[in-house]
Amino acid sequence: MTTPTELRSTAPWLVHVSTDIVVFGIGHTGLQVLLRRHPPRDGVAAPWALPGGYVGPVEHLDRSAEHTLAQQTGVDDVYLEQLYTFGRPDRHPASRVITVAYYALMPPRRVQEIRARPTPEVRWYPIDRMPDLYLDHTDIVVLARRRLEAKLAYSTIAFQLLAAEFTLSELQQVYEIILCEKLDKRNFRKRILALDCIEETGRKRRDGSHRPAGLYRYKSPGEVHFIK
Amino acid sequence: MTTPTELRSTAPWLVHVSTDIVVFGIGHTGLQVLLRRHPPRDGVAAPWALPGGYVGPVEHLDRSAEHTLAQQTGVDDVYLEQLYTFGRPDRHPASRVITVAYYALMPPRRVQEIRARPTPEVRWYPIDRMPDLYLDHTDIVVLARRRLEAKLAYSTIAFQLLAAEFTLSELQQVYEIILCEKLDKRNFRKRILALDCIEETGRKRRDGSHRPAGLYRYKSPGEVHFIK
Repeated sequence: MTTPTELRSTAPWLVHVSTDIVVFGIGHTGLQVLLRRHPPRDGVAAPWALPGGYVGPVEHLDRSAEHTLAQQTGVDDVYLEQLYTFGRPDRHPASRVITVAYYALMPPRRVQEIRARPTPEVRWYPIDRMPDLYLDHTDIVVLARRRLEAKLAYSTIAFQLLAAEFTLSELQQVYEIILCEKLDKRNFRKRILALDCIEETGRKRRDGSHRPAGLYRYKSPGEVHFIK
Repeated sequence: MTTPTELRSTAPWLVHVSTDIVVFGIGHTGLQVLLRRHPPRDGVAAPWALPGGYVGPVEHLDRSAEHTLAQQTGVDDVYLEQLYTFGRPDRHPASRVITVAYYALMPPRRVQEIRARPTPEVRWYPIDRMPDLYLDHTDIVVLARRRLEAKLAYSTIAFQLLAAEFTLSELQQVYEIILCEKLDKRNFRKRILALDCIEETGRKRRDGSHRPAGLYRYKSPGEVHFIK
């Protein structure tokens, strides 16, 4: 479990630090991840990667992630949350690079906006049909997906993947896509309403052949407390 | 929100990376944090600090944190969870040091063991009476405390602060200490039992003047799912 003493030192070692960003959105084929074409570098010819890059000398980590994402994909004005820091000594073939991973969620309108842009080097991939990714970026996506699934159970994170107003069917669909399973409609509605985190807007929307469905919104984003 | 381009570079900058570890335990005066006396360094004479140190050149981050904690405090065999990576450019006066913070929880028996050791350079401090800490270590403790409070609401994290068998009063006390508020006994018991994460052991313990209280244990650690 411990490292041999000769591998450690009281003198600080210098390493490279980067940020990598997982952006999730929901499209027609389910959960999507925003990927960029990576330029071949250091002899590693992985064609697709997460948006990401090195942290500047006086840059805050959060700002670096925001700036890198905007520069590489044109996506700005999105809330990034720190996910995890990946530091396997062998994760990069050429040097020690520790990466601070972030994730963000996008509502359907913005998923469509990005899809409509003529930028072949940036595109959405369904999470279950991603190409091989650069370095350990697949591991980063897997962990981000697990975090998203976990947060679904105890926070109002799902609202970030929905339009401001939504039907209970749309909300249930987001849960089903992320949890990868069908949920019982009656039970889902009962439990979601019991959490007291959404409210009716008073408006209705007609979708397809069904009768008009009531529109809801989140009361206030954040965590749901079950004990207090 | 974004950084001026002249502060960034496509060439990777070299920085120092460290780990710092917040160890929580519950003592007679509430929530405690394990601190070590920091040697004066770089002209910064902060006497107390979190256990922590630089990451070795081929060390995994988790191993580095475990090893540093063991070396500085004698605490090993404890589960460390990554908390957050702190990277403010000015957080260290002498150089750019990005630190990956971890946290761990200890049961009462181990809190006592450490308290009983004759090591004045390592000691427990009540979280609300900590001395001034080295660098931004107070911010790290504050975030760790918030994470602990948040996880209390949706996971079985509290069991790590308890003995393997506990009374419902002891469990309620852990919740009250971390949430900093008194909870209604009836309501707490109803809600905790409804979560279906603890079970009676069949044994009882007599504490003080009360009638013997039933002992419980956690069924299985992990997250509690409310929707699925």
